[in-house]
Amino acid sequence: MKKILGSGILMCFIIPIFLYSQVSSMKDVSAKIRSQRQKNEHLILKEFVDFLSIPNVSADRENVRKNAEFIKKMMEKRGIKARVMETGGNPVVYGEVIVPDAEWTLGFYAHYDGQPVDPRKWTDSRPFEPVFRPGKMEAGTDFPKPIKAVPLPDNYMDDWRIYARGSSDDRAAVMALIAAFDALKNSGIPQKNNLKFIFEGEEEAGSTNLNSFLEKNKEILESDVLLVCDGPIYYSGDPTLFFGVRGITTLEITVYGPNTSVHSGHYGNWAPNPAIRLARLLASMKDKNGKVLVKGFYDTVVPLTEREKEALKAIPPFDTQIMELYGFSKPEREDLSLMESIQLPSLNINGIQSGWVGEQARTIVPSEAIASIDIRMVNDNDANDLTQKIIDHIKEQGYHVVEEEPDQNTRMTHPFIAKVLTSERGYKASRTSMDLPISECIIDTLEDFYGEDVVCIPSLGGSLPISFFNEILGAPTIGVPIANHDNNQHQPDENLCLGHLWQGIETFAALMLTSNK
Amino acid sequence: MKKILGSGILMCFIIPIFLYSQVSSMKDVSAKIRSQRQKNEHLILKEFVDFLSIPNVSADRENVRKNAEFIKKMMEKRGIKARVMETGGNPVVYGEVIVPDAEWTLGFYAHYDGQPVDPRKWTDSRPFEPVFRPGKMEAGTDFPKPIKAVPLPDNYMDDWRIYARGSSDDRAAVMALIAAFDALKNSGIPQKNNLKFIFEGEEEAGSTNLNSFLEKNKEILESDVLLVCDGPIYYSGDPTLFFGVRGITTLEITVYGPNTSVHSGHYGNWAPNPAIRLARLLASMKDKNGKVLVKGFYDTVVPLTEREKEALKAIPPFDTQIMELYGFSKPEREDLSLMESIQLPSLNINGIQSGWVGEQARTIVPSEAIASIDIRMVNDNDANDLTQKIIDHIKEQGYHVVEEEPDQNTRMTHPFIAKVLTSERGYKASRTSMDLPISECIIDTLEDFYGEDVVCIPSLGGSLPISFFNEILGAPTIGVPIANHDNNQHQPDENLCLGHLWQGIETFAALMLTSNK
Repeated sequence: MKKILGSGILMCFIIPIFLYSQVSSMKDVSAKIRSQRQKNEHLILKEFVDFLSIPNVSADRENVRKNAEFIKKMMEKRGIKARVMETGGNPVVYGEVIVPDAEWTLGFYAHYDGQPVDPRKWTDSRPFEPVFRPGKMEAGTDFPKPIKAVPLPDNYMDDWRIYARGSSDDRAAVMALIAAFDALKNSGIPQKNNLKFIFEGEEEAGSTNLNSFLEKNKEILESDVLLVCDGPIYYSGDPTLFFGVRGITTLEITVYGPNTSVHSGHYGNWAPNPAIRLARLLASMKDKNGKVLVKGFYDTVVPLTEREKEALKAIPPFDTQIMELYGFSKPEREDLSLMESIQLPSLNINGIQSGWVGEQARTIVPSEAIASIDIRMVNDNDANDLTQKIIDHIKEQGYHVVEEEPDQNTRMTHPFIAKVLTSERGYKASRTSMDLPISECIIDTLEDFYGEDVVCIPSLGGSLPISFFNEILGAPTIGVPIANHDNNQHQPDENLCLGHLWQGIETFAALMLTSNK
Repeated sequence: MKKILGSGILMCFIIPIFLYSQVSSMKDVSAKIRSQRQKNEHLILKEFVDFLSIPNVSADRENVRKNAEFIKKMMEKRGIKARVMETGGNPVVYGEVIVPDAEWTLGFYAHYDGQPVDPRKWTDSRPFEPVFRPGKMEAGTDFPKPIKAVPLPDNYMDDWRIYARGSSDDRAAVMALIAAFDALKNSGIPQKNNLKFIFEGEEEAGSTNLNSFLEKNKEILESDVLLVCDGPIYYSGDPTLFFGVRGITTLEITVYGPNTSVHSGHYGNWAPNPAIRLARLLASMKDKNGKVLVKGFYDTVVPLTEREKEALKAIPPFDTQIMELYGFSKPEREDLSLMESIQLPSLNINGIQSGWVGEQARTIVPSEAIASIDIRMVNDNDANDLTQKIIDHIKEQGYHVVEEEPDQNTRMTHPFIAKVLTSERGYKASRTSMDLPISECIIDTLEDFYGEDVVCIPSLGGSLPISFFNEILGAPTIGVPIANHDNNQHQPDENLCLGHLWQGIETFAALMLTSNK
């Protein structure tokens, strides 16, 4: 980010002197924290293994509560004032460090519950008995061989990985935050900011009680910024901040042919075929290069600021490697990089279905064809607005749009009928400006700490319920992911690279020291 | 068809006188046959009920053979020289009537085996215990109520239906042919033609041994025409002849996105989406009005002759009723009637599939999208030729076409990949000219018999293995369906309307009298 700062004229004169002292002191701080963290690695890992041994599937309320108690104890041991707060569902574990004349009040959000597990699909069949592997497991193999985590081996390397549900998503962040506080404390570095830790217990179950919890406790939780410690780090492995997420809404389109599938010999090229109709309708929505053709689809996109554009440019490109990983040689939009493309709203087909294919194929004209679509939104995109624009587009293609299965009368009145089901669920997009003082301060602190640029992503492609924090707490949010990108999030064999845990601890410690002074 | 004959200038002078005597004598013949048929209705029905009581699923070889023996006995009782001929699979029952100085040798083909049954899906759960119902059963009901067929009720009406597997497809034709011969014989009308009856026992299992059977016995089976007595009659219920069938071949197209489904947030509008690619590819194959855009697709279509065009025009239109039945208000090709459209080759999507829809929908970019397609061909269309034209079209859209799953190297070399699987199976199209002397003779005979036009369809939309007869026996084929069009062919609750059985007997009797003299 310093490159970016350096490009502002004003900055050229004022910042360098100021930066000098900060950089100098942060270098010292960084060394101290690293040394503390290294000294404690064994204890941290031991505690992390114990933590990961408690099952944490959101629906397993009894065990989830054991996680909450475990976290409370970990915090109390370090002198963090902690309590388990009821939400109606799984509890929030809240921890607080209040200092006199705090420069900032920093909120840290993470969640300690995990996705469901199917032990049969885990290579070790035991998602809650953590094991180490000296490297990334090769897909479909049991290699490199597991190494027991209890008792903890004497030696391990940064490229070892620990395999367990929640090892990355998102108990890694809980552990790293607590260890970061510990490292700071043990380094004797004075705490200049208030710290508020919010550890949710039902994020993987849709955060159903988070809204009301935030509403009820907004005074307690009040912060200058909320750091959302979740998600995978950028592909390069460099420390990463993200300032926004795309929102999401979904819709389903059904177009109709005959009211029952009919013989393709007797009626093929006479009875209207819903599959080709759907194909034509979908094809009309995007051009060959993936640009959405729905009128007004990009109208409410707030253009990236200069700073955001420069941040994007500064991100080390990994497109080639990702294409290699996923086996394709050109992206949908050739004019945009991955990071650029996810700064735009998307219209993406999740699935299409009509009749049967493969061994099940029948020589019929199917009766209907369905497409499931998701729309990812960027800030100021509104789900209802985009959905309506798509509906208008469908109408422009000659369709009569309905919300229910068409009856015979509707069928006989309208040659083209599309049922469009929209979704009540979904998340809003959100994006925090990189120009806010707290944003700048956080970027600077982290870059000074590491002595190099960190990856600053305007918006992640995925969606998180971050807008709750903005709307209820009024706090800007910035994301701080720490897990390796190939952590098998939500899947069997979830894992965390030890090097990323160590880096995460240092990143969080640095952020706790966020300061302009 | 008389209208058509009348429109030929030559015909205007020669035929009328000739027709006069034929019409006059056929009127007489028609009355005699009807009277005989009516006199025997009860016996015919009793025999038919016994016949339908023998299970006839192709795979049930023991019972299929009982059917064969039953048919042989029915023929012998009427003085037809009959034998059960081995094919390697289920036998053919062959019957022969040879007369001195025969004008024509007429082959009649029908099959006595039936589609598999799932008794639970039959309203009466007993597909081989025939029942009558006084009218068509209302879908999803048990109304009108069934009436036992054993013992046979004293009275029944022409609009009653008999429900059993094979009641229409195709034991109706076997029964009607034998009863027709009986009616002729009992009427004392001399037989001027040789008759050869070929009753196949494994049509519903793909006619796997028919080819070699015909090959081996082609001298025995030699005929001037082969009348294929199968399929449903035209919607109007009028006596129907069809002169051809469309051929069929199939193909499956798979297009590719990433090598595994990926998160639609992280990669949506960057990773190539195979569903929208497939949509665009399919949409490129047909225009909005259903016309196939694949280059050269219609090039090998032999245009309809004047006679065929006039025959088409003379068919009473039922498009409106069929659209009403199937709940759509406009056909795919608005410029063509149903009967016109099935005279052309079709490219029809049987199914499409990518990712998931409905409750299963996941917010992903799917890894592949598949379309199953069938192509119906008309005479002189060649399966390989049309398939190649479609492959060429796919290539023109920028795709690298493969026959196997693409490997990583292929994926990284070609941005657009389509796997196209073609089918070895399928049937050729065939169409007998209406201008052949035997065709004209058959049309005239039947129209004279009924004293009105019969429905003459150049080609049916569906596909039948008729080309075997053409190729091996060298005999032209003409189809003579007799079952009501709503007979639930291949489905539970298969049925035959009694009126159609009676009409079928008269039609076959008339055809046995085919003569120019």
